[in-house]
Amino acid sequence: MIMPLKDGERLDDLHRNGYKIIQHPKGFCFGMDAVLLAAFAKVHKNENHMDFCCGNGVVPILLAARYAGASFYGMEIQEQPAEMAKRSVALNGLCDKISIIHGDIKEAADIFGHGSFDVITVNPPYMPPGSGFENESTEMAIARHELKCNLDDVALAASKALRYGGRLYMVHRPGRLADIICALRDHGLEPKILRFAQPRAGGAPNMLLIMAIRGGKPHLNMEPPLIIYDSKGVYTQEVRELYYE
Amino acid sequence: MIMPLKDGERLDDLHRNGYKIIQHPKGFCFGMDAVLLAAFAKVHKNENHMDFCCGNGVVPILLAARYAGASFYGMEIQEQPAEMAKRSVALNGLCDKISIIHGDIKEAADIFGHGSFDVITVNPPYMPPGSGFENESTEMAIARHELKCNLDDVALAASKALRYGGRLYMVHRPGRLADIICALRDHGLEPKILRFAQPRAGGAPNMLLIMAIRGGKPHLNMEPPLIIYDSKGVYTQEVRELYYE
Repeated sequence: MIMPLKDGERLDDLHRNGYKIIQHPKGFCFGMDAVLLAAFAKVHKNENHMDFCCGNGVVPILLAARYAGASFYGMEIQEQPAEMAKRSVALNGLCDKISIIHGDIKEAADIFGHGSFDVITVNPPYMPPGSGFENESTEMAIARHELKCNLDDVALAASKALRYGGRLYMVHRPGRLADIICALRDHGLEPKILRFAQPRAGGAPNMLLIMAIRGGKPHLNMEPPLIIYDSKGVYTQEVRELYYE
Repeated sequence: MIMPLKDGERLDDLHRNGYKIIQHPKGFCFGMDAVLLAAFAKVHKNENHMDFCCGNGVVPILLAARYAGASFYGMEIQEQPAEMAKRSVALNGLCDKISIIHGDIKEAADIFGHGSFDVITVNPPYMPPGSGFENESTEMAIARHELKCNLDDVALAASKALRYGGRLYMVHRPGRLADIICALRDHGLEPKILRFAQPRAGGAPNMLLIMAIRGGKPHLNMEPPLIIYDSKGVYTQEVRELYYE
């Protein structure tokens, strides 16, 4: 029996299948980005899925709760969150569905073979290097800033690891949209679906969800914006369903 | 005295400074795209402005109504709308502020000099060649489809004609967003502001407004979506103000 919790860690409920996740309040804790990404991605029956930069494994666990039959992988360059992810997978009895790999996404295609995934999800570091991270722990700085991988690395690694016609789902910040689109196209990943999330109905978006197809034809389909809070400042019905479906 | 109207033409009110515009119901008539573009663009005092693909001249006339002191140009490859635009400019007594040129935007930098404009606006043909236009008149097909110029031509021509730091404002369709962003960046025009317009609050966008700066630094600022119709199907307050400010 694996001892799930270490000092300072806590166990959070994912509100799906009774699944729980190990988090560390001073280290990596998943945010709404991960919940939106897991809800945006689709994994069809018999498809192989990989989550790049998987952190504590929240995205593969949420996807394994929604989709039966496929196999799920998560790859994380930092040892501590990767080890937490492995314990969360075991804790939920998901070892036969989800595999967590402590490693660099730049090596994913070499490890698993080129074109071996149907679906890749990624919640990459949002901030370009150079934006200040002096006051963060190394773990948080690597999770938030493009220190170990940048958008070009993500797009290249996804392009190599996805089969032709395979899908990349990414959550990111609107400020990087031009960087994202150019990086994807540079590596043969055609943006096909774009959805923005905005805190309030009348406000500007602060998150984006994008799906790209390896080898897809140009034409982007825009979805209606996802509104996070209603006029009273509480989660909208759509967001409540994402968290507690 | 110029005889303003020819057979089949009509005179429409622009609801600004008493300005009117000549249109032909079977040829080019301006749409909401042009109104949104003219409202999105900013022309500061003493700035030189050029409207590429100016059609019947609606954008320079709307801008000349809002901004005093600057000089405005419009360039149109088709003789008939260019000639209509010239008559509308004269009809409104704007010949000292607006010049309409019948010509190809690909030659704008050669005609006016490289880097000679502070601001360029463009409402280009939206549809890639190959999408059917068999049932349209030649004039409408050229206005709507990338027959005489495509996004790459627009971005290259704007890049050459804009000064370093100058601004390009474009209205287009969301389906082409990836094409737009890549074409702009390919020619040194960095997307800086992006705004989507959506018919209804809960729906997907069907128009986009984008501003790019020649030589700008990467980072895109997203504006709140512009909602066209309220829940009763009538123009929202913001749209009414754009039309009747």
